[in-house]
Amino acid sequence: MATIAPTRASAAEAGARDIARFATTARWDSRLRTDVTARQFAIAVDEPPELGGADTAPNPMELLLAGLDGCLSVVVHTIAGELGATVRALDLASEATLDTRGFLGTAPVRPYFQTVHTAIEIGIDGLDEAGFASFRDAVAARCPAGTLIAAAGVDFTISWARV
Amino acid sequence: MATIAPTRASAAEAGARDIARFATTARWDSRLRTDVTARQFAIAVDEPPELGGADTAPNPMELLLAGLDGCLSVVVHTIAGELGATVRALDLASEATLDTRGFLGTAPVRPYFQTVHTAIEIGIDGLDEAGFASFRDAVAARCPAGTLIAAAGVDFTISWARV
Repeated sequence: MATIAPTRASAAEAGARDIARFATTARWDSRLRTDVTARQFAIAVDEPPELGGADTAPNPMELLLAGLDGCLSVVVHTIAGELGATVRALDLASEATLDTRGFLGTAPVRPYFQTVHTAIEIGIDGLDEAGFASFRDAVAARCPAGTLIAAAGVDFTISWARV
Repeated sequence: MATIAPTRASAAEAGARDIARFATTARWDSRLRTDVTARQFAIAVDEPPELGGADTAPNPMELLLAGLDGCLSVVVHTIAGELGATVRALDLASEATLDTRGFLGTAPVRPYFQTVHTAIEIGIDGLDEAGFASFRDAVAARCPAGTLIAAAGVDFTISWARV
């Protein structure tokens, strides 16, 4: 269960210091390759051959999953820190499906993910079973990428294993 | 206006060939850095110093925006091809805001984006004004990343300029 219910509070209600801003610029290169810049970082995007690209970089959906994995990792560490717990090890594996007919425009289905599942293996010390349950709930409730996906109505699940 | 209304059709209703699958694996490295693998590609994720990281890679929200930029680019090219139009140039700039109190757990606001805006500059031949309007609508309606963000209730807008 979520410990924080996402609301539609507008940015205008928050103090300026509460609002984080993120920005990218991007330029199409050739075929289906696009080169994105985020601050000092270059992020290339392409498609595999079966989707018409030259397979020089991850595809857009893989970047979304990478953002999800990274986001969950940051939230795990943040909440572990709050609880005085120590993370020894953390592995994540995310899988997603989508119905390509939405993107292709050949059927009235949503273009975005149908399902997303993330399997997390974590070595964490300093939490008993009840504490670990609260920890898991807080991670799911406070992860910006995960809550975005869930709020879109995607069948999004996280499984946890302590190692 | 969307030309295709996203629905909640389940993957089970689609033929197996319609379903695309995407997967990542990820391992936490140190501090807030996580190393993600998608097929043969390595994608690093970190946070800037003000968010507690070592700033060795884009942060998770920047990766989501990179996925959005790349996704819009792929959809632009796909729909241009359907319409017999030629894309000469394509630049994108995305900006997003979020209220950090959701992530930090200090206020009952949603952790994910409040706003996302993408400004697109496109050089495209072979479309009159009416055709370009239909093209724009189809891009917005069929982009998996963009429709995910919109479906989550984010104030998501795209502005277009022909160059």
